[in-house]
Amino acid sequence: MRNVALLIAYDGSGFAGSQRQVGVRTVQSVLEHALEGLTGESPEVARFAAAGRTDAGVHARGMVVNFRSERLLAPRSWVGGLNARMQDDIRVLDAVEVEEGFHSRFSAVARSYRYEVLTTRVPDPLCRSHVLWEPRPLPARDALVESFRSIVGTHDFTAFGSAGSSERNPVCTVMEADVEDRGERLVFRVKARSFLYHMVRRLVGAALEVGRGRFPAATLRELLEPGKHRFVPPTAPARGLVFWSVDYRPPYAGLFGSLLGGAT
Amino acid sequence: MRNVALLIAYDGSGFAGSQRQVGVRTVQSVLEHALEGLTGESPEVARFAAAGRTDAGVHARGMVVNFRSERLLAPRSWVGGLNARMQDDIRVLDAVEVEEGFHSRFSAVARSYRYEVLTTRVPDPLCRSHVLWEPRPLPARDALVESFRSIVGTHDFTAFGSAGSSERNPVCTVMEADVEDRGERLVFRVKARSFLYHMVRRLVGAALEVGRGRFPAATLRELLEPGKHRFVPPTAPARGLVFWSVDYRPPYAGLFGSLLGGAT
Repeated sequence: MRNVALLIAYDGSGFAGSQRQVGVRTVQSVLEHALEGLTGESPEVARFAAAGRTDAGVHARGMVVNFRSERLLAPRSWVGGLNARMQDDIRVLDAVEVEEGFHSRFSAVARSYRYEVLTTRVPDPLCRSHVLWEPRPLPARDALVESFRSIVGTHDFTAFGSAGSSERNPVCTVMEADVEDRGERLVFRVKARSFLYHMVRRLVGAALEVGRGRFPAATLRELLEPGKHRFVPPTAPARGLVFWSVDYRPPYAGLFGSLLGGAT
Repeated sequence: MRNVALLIAYDGSGFAGSQRQVGVRTVQSVLEHALEGLTGESPEVARFAAAGRTDAGVHARGMVVNFRSERLLAPRSWVGGLNARMQDDIRVLDAVEVEEGFHSRFSAVARSYRYEVLTTRVPDPLCRSHVLWEPRPLPARDALVESFRSIVGTHDFTAFGSAGSSERNPVCTVMEADVEDRGERLVFRVKARSFLYHMVRRLVGAALEVGRGRFPAATLRELLEPGKHRFVPPTAPARGLVFWSVDYRPPYAGLFGSLLGGAT
């Protein structure tokens, strides 16, 4: 059996999340259906692995998945063959045959997300599905940026995890967290080894409250201190969130090169 | 009767163009239906005027329309009342009561368009409906920019007008034409008093051919010389084109202020 890794991107608007669920369109079911059509091999449960899970409405720009196949196809045949069998809201960007030991989820050492907010007074229908429109003034923009940057480090992120879910270890290491203020757009970037469920959306939600002047800039950092999470930060809507990229440990570090531009 | 001007934006993907046509969804029919619902006044033919016409798949970010009504509503009531009656692929951004003499089309002195091209090796499903993905290399980017800039001035644009249509005067005055090279994106901007049908898409199509190294940089300028249009430049796809803004003559010059950011 060959082990094949794919770099994929999708507009999450038309998907009920990334993982297979009965009766709804998900990223996994669409990919598996295309794969079955291309290879004739019937999909088995858990054959497809993904670097990360995304909720309904959450997008991906550099998601990595892998699967096993007995077929020997050139990378461009995987790309072309799968894309021809899917709607254009999901695209296979690249394919590469990898060593047996590679696993898109367990070989990953970091995941990066972006969250984009449009701050103009008027909405933009062209990006309504992948940018959050925030028409309320953000008088404390500098505090917003400062607060979001303050989460870098190893902390107990329980305050930003979803209540009621049986989480794994709530201690996460955030390697990078920044907000680029482009004037009419705020672009949040965060990179960590792992994330709790809804964690990025809650971090962004809390930072936006700081920007509105409703929370002081120290709030995010305080919520990371033990026993300090006395309230639940608001969860920013799914549509502004993009699963951006995955970093792999050696020898898979340069798996897909730099196919994705950094500036978008 | 009051004369009301609206600033509107729409994602053209879901519209069969801007003008009313029987049996299909157009910008005009959607707006008129919402207006009828809000005011109770039945729409009459040609009551709605627009600064410009857009084809199926072409978008608008700062289109201006106007209509007559006996209703006296505050601007935010026009905006809210109409938006509540339309899907979110079209938004009324602002409304203002204008003098009897204002006409969204005839009072305009210039229209601006943008055309965006994504030049990464891999596509981006998130912007598939409003950006042209150009995976072929563009080795002659500088020539592309130079050629597009060369169209500024008053010329006979017959070579860039659509064959078979009974055009008005083919002489147009292009006030501004530029291409911003953002690395992985090319943003074409052009401003003129008027445009021929398909003119912007043909100018962009020809400039892209220059970028591919298939036409020399002088091509666009040569096509504007009398008797030189011996071939028809390719028409770039609709989806990359956005009707960006309208300039009005005094006293309407500052009609909607600067609601739209320039950087997007």
